[in-house]
Parts: sequence; C-alpha cells; structure tokens
Amino acid sequence: MLVLSVIKRVPEEIKEHLEKAFGETHFTFCHGMDEAEDHLLEADIIITYGEDLTEERIQKAKKLKWIMVLSAGMDLMPFDEIDKRDITVTNVKGIHAKPMAEYAISMLLQVSRNAKLLSQREREHQWDRRVPMMEINGKTMVLLGTGAIAQETARLAQAFQMKTIGVSKSGRAKTHFDETYAVEEMESILLEADFLVAVLPSTPETKYLLNRDHFKKVPDHAVFLNMGRGDLVTTVDLLSAVQENDIAHAVLDVFEEEPLPEDHQFWEEERVTVTPHLSGISPHYVPRGFDVFECNLKAYLRNEGMENLIDPKRGY
Amino acid sequence: MLVLSVIKRVPEEIKEHLEKAFGETHFTFCHGMDEAEDHLLEADIIITYGEDLTEERIQKAKKLKWIMVLSAGMDLMPFDEIDKRDITVTNVKGIHAKPMAEYAISMLLQVSRNAKLLSQREREHQWDRRVPMMEINGKTMVLLGTGAIAQETARLAQAFQMKTIGVSKSGRAKTHFDETYAVEEMESILLEADFLVAVLPSTPETKYLLNRDHFKKVPDHAVFLNMGRGDLVTTVDLLSAVQENDIAHAVLDVFEEEPLPEDHQFWEEERVTVTPHLSGISPHYVPRGFDVFECNLKAYLRNEGMENLIDPKRGY
Repeated sequence: MLVLSVIKRVPEEIKEHLEKAFGETHFTFCHGMDEAEDHLLEADIIITYGEDLTEERIQKAKKLKWIMVLSAGMDLMPFDEIDKRDITVTNVKGIHAKPMAEYAISMLLQVSRNAKLLSQREREHQWDRRVPMMEINGKTMVLLGTGAIAQETARLAQAFQMKTIGVSKSGRAKTHFDETYAVEEMESILLEADFLVAVLPSTPETKYLLNRDHFKKVPDHAVFLNMGRGDLVTTVDLLSAVQENDIAHAVLDVFEEEPLPEDHQFWEEERVTVTPHLSGISPHYVPRGFDVFECNLKAYLRNEGMENLIDPKRGY
Repeated sequence: MLVLSVIKRVPEEIKEHLEKAFGETHFTFCHGMDEAEDHLLEADIIITYGEDLTEERIQKAKKLKWIMVLSAGMDLMPFDEIDKRDITVTNVKGIHAKPMAEYAISMLLQVSRNAKLLSQREREHQWDRRVPMMEINGKTMVLLGTGAIAQETARLAQAFQMKTIGVSKSGRAKTHFDETYAVEEMESILLEADFLVAVLPSTPETKYLLNRDHFKKVPDHAVFLNMGRGDLVTTVDLLSAVQENDIAHAVLDVFEEEPLPEDHQFWEEERVTVTPHLSGISPHYVPRGFDVFECNLKAYLRNEGMENLIDPKRGY
C-alpha cells in the first residue's frame, strides 16, 4: 500500500517515525504535487493541503481510496469527482484551536492591559505607572460560534474565571460554555458582552451577520475580536462602530479584503488592532496534522471509524 | 465601636455597604492620616495602607485593638510598639494574585507571539504573515516562589497545559504545581525552564539569589520574567545574560533602582521588555481589600479567627 504525501518540508523525524510505525506501508514524500504527479497512479492514500487536487488528478489516481487533507478549509477540492469514486476524505478540523485560542486570550489581555500605550512609553523610556490596567477575570465573553476553536477559547476564558456564552445556529449546549443560545436570540445576549469574539466560518448564513445595530447593543466598553472570517461585518459598519464609540476596541485578524491594503483606515485607528490573519499560524501545525493522520491510518488499517470524516456531498 | 479608615477615595458604595451591614459599628472614613489624627483616641480598629502609622500614633490610639493593613508590604509598621500593646494586625496578602498572574500570562504570550514586532508592522501598515509565532501550551514554567501569586500564575499556566514547577525555601508541595523543589535543588530544575518566572519577595535569602551562572543553565530559548523584587539579580548579570544569549528575552517589572532611569540600557535592549512596576495594579484593589476587611470584621465581632494574621514579632 502506498501513502503519497505532497506536503512540503515534512520534518525528517516525522517521516522516520511513520516508516517505522507502519512497516507494511510504503511512504513517498514529495515536495509538492508537481513532484508527485508520477506517483498518483499507485497511491492508495494522498496527504495534501487540498489545494492541488483536480478532477484530472483524481481520475489519474485510480487506486485512491482516502484523501487526508492537512487543512480545515476545502474550497478547492473536486468533491463531485471524489464522491463519484466514493473516496474517503478526512481533514484536520480543530487543528487551529490551540493557536487561535491563545491568540484570542493574548489579544484581549493586550487590549485590557493597554499594551500599545505601554509599549510606546517603553520606546520613549518613560516610567509611567498611571497607564490604566484592566483585568479580564470576572468578565463575560460572548462567542459567535461554538465549534472546536470557540470551545478551546471558552475553556481558557473559564480558567480566567470569565462567564462564557456561546451563540450558534442550533444553540445546543457545548462544553466550556456557561450558556448557549441560537443565533435568533443573539441580540439580547450582546448586552452582556464585555468581550465579543467571532469564530464563525464564512457561509451564506454568517455573511454580514453582524451590523452596526448589533454593535450599538453591546456595552460601550466592549472589545470586539474577529478571528473567523472577514465578511462577518462590513468595513463601514465596523469602522463607524469604533469611531462613534459603540465599542471600545476592535481586534481584527480577518478582513473583507486580504491582505489589508496599505492605505486602509483600520491601520491608523488607535482603537483598532490589526494582525495579518495569523491567529491560526503555529510551528506545531505539520506535526499536529500528521498526528491526526497517524490516528486515522491506524483506524483505516483496522477498518475502524476515522476522525474528522468529510461528506463529499456537503463539502464539510 | 469605632472603625477608622484612613484610605483615600473609598468608593461611596463601599462606605454605604459597610454602614448598612454592620449597623452597631461606627465608621469614620478620613482622607489620609492627617485628617484622622483627632479620631485616633477613639478608634478600636484602623484601616490603613500601613505607611502612616508611627509609634506616637499607636500610643495615642489607646483603644486600638486591630490594625487592618490594606497592603501586602509592611516595612514601615512600628511592630515593636504594636507587639507591646498586643494589637492584632492583618493584611491583604494575596490581593495581588489575580492582576499579577494575568500580567505574567499576558507578557509571556506577548513575547511568544512576537507582539513588539507585530505592533511595529502595524505602525508601518505592513501585512507580514512571516512574523514567527510560538504557542505557550506544552511548555514548562519554573516559578521562583510558591505563594499566593505564584500559585495563581501556576493555575493559569496549567490551564494553558503547561508543566509547572515551583521553587521555594521548603520545597513543600503546593496546589497548581506539578512539582516543587527546595531552593538548594534549583540549579538542576533551571535546565527545564521554557519560562522562568520570579515572584519572590525581597529578603536576605532572596537578595541576589540569581546570578549569571543560573542564566547559563536555562535553555537559550527561555524567557525570564521578574515581577517579584528588583534585587533578585544584578543589572549587570541580567544584561549580559540577554546580550550574550543565555536567555531569549527578559520581561522586567521590578528593578534594582526604581523608577528605572531614563538612560538605562534596559529600555533600549530589543530583547528586554520593561514595564513600570505595574503587575499588581488593579482597578479592583480597594474593593478587594475591603472584602478581606469585611470577612475579618465578621470574624472579629464573633471572636473567631481572622484571615491573614500577621505576627508582629516577625513582621509577616
């Protein structure tokens, strides 16, 4: 059986570990799909970021039974062809949970502890103990989204003794949330938000889900953090919410247009913090992805159920 | 019975609450000791930051039975006179735990997530996703000190799935520490420190406890954070440890000389972060202090044991 990986720069220790752990299985590690083209014919399993598979390649890979996507987004996967061939697809849903939860807590602490001003004072060599400090314990975090990333963020928020409220399509109860509500009930929940954290994927239902009126509902001292998708709210609504003091601060990792243009107003706003879509970036990404793969390979070889199965008909 | 408070700017709601909750007790709230001088004679209980009590004032306060110190440090208390009169002393030990633990986690996240460089890129309007990001989960935090502040810091570190190791005089096991060691065993523990966090008070035993050799023991990638006292390590040793890459970064809230002089080298070092002794600053300080007082007043009125009793013979 051949496992074909087209992931670039897989650490040697991961390769050696897999070859040792699965002696009966052959592994071919290629530096991208171009290098892998000739091996497609023989591959039973492909490990990919999911952006390099075309209909033609699926057709060429006649023995292919399982695609392991080392990513959470799968917009470029040729699901029709995959579905026709009844090929199994799994991904690494949840792999972003730890770095993104740390991003959220880090940024909320930075805003609450006035890190920008402190850093300026440091550059000026100015010993200024009057810079106002807030604590995050005892506050309420409202999370838009209750999936793996939101849950990990809520878990840390609870460790900081925050109240955590989740908003999702179903409103179903989830671990690490003190309360959960369906999206229809969102408006009344916003009144409680000291921190409003958006972790929603981009779907027709979440597109421009938030508007200016929602920001008017949250307390003036609230901090909004968006690490989901940039089309949750229009730039215009968000900018006026900050400029007209509906909210105290916005921390933005995602934008309607990325990269954020150099002359964009967000860069200049004192009470907007811009980060370049990096909340999910982690040095542990590839090792964690291969950990998920290894678990699933064990299950696959034993004909047992795998984690993070994707329905090709729905694409998620 | 008269409770005399010399704490400035006590919020009205706290005054009203106490007067309502303890109807039989008289409260006099003064704006500092000068204003309180005439009431000393009648005071049964004094609430103070502990910097304004002199031997003469203790002698003048003939009815005084209990001094509630709204501070953790009590270097200026006339303990001989207090001991002679057998006056009870309590303080607010532990009141700094929450803000200081949040400070530590916030600063370690900032360093790990390269906040200084990201902030510079933001000022330059530069979308740079190659700024290296580290996570703090899975790391090991070695704490010098295992008291209330260290414990709260370790609790949060454990929530971030760190291993926590405490070093104290006795090495006794404490909550939220995976391991604890006596200070004699410190050297071998330093090898494990991804984060070395000092929360030690200034005592003859802790003065210059750390030297250059200790920094050579910790891994090169380690981050040192000092929020205890500035005389734990000499400026010279610390500066050379950073400049010669014994450690990756130092986060300093306390210094041998405070305020840190404007021309001090620490301000300029790229891999030193200076904050102006603010880790314990909190908007909740006075309310929390009065919460401790209220608990103790209840116990006092019932002749029960009080929290945070200070031994006047030892001064802590």
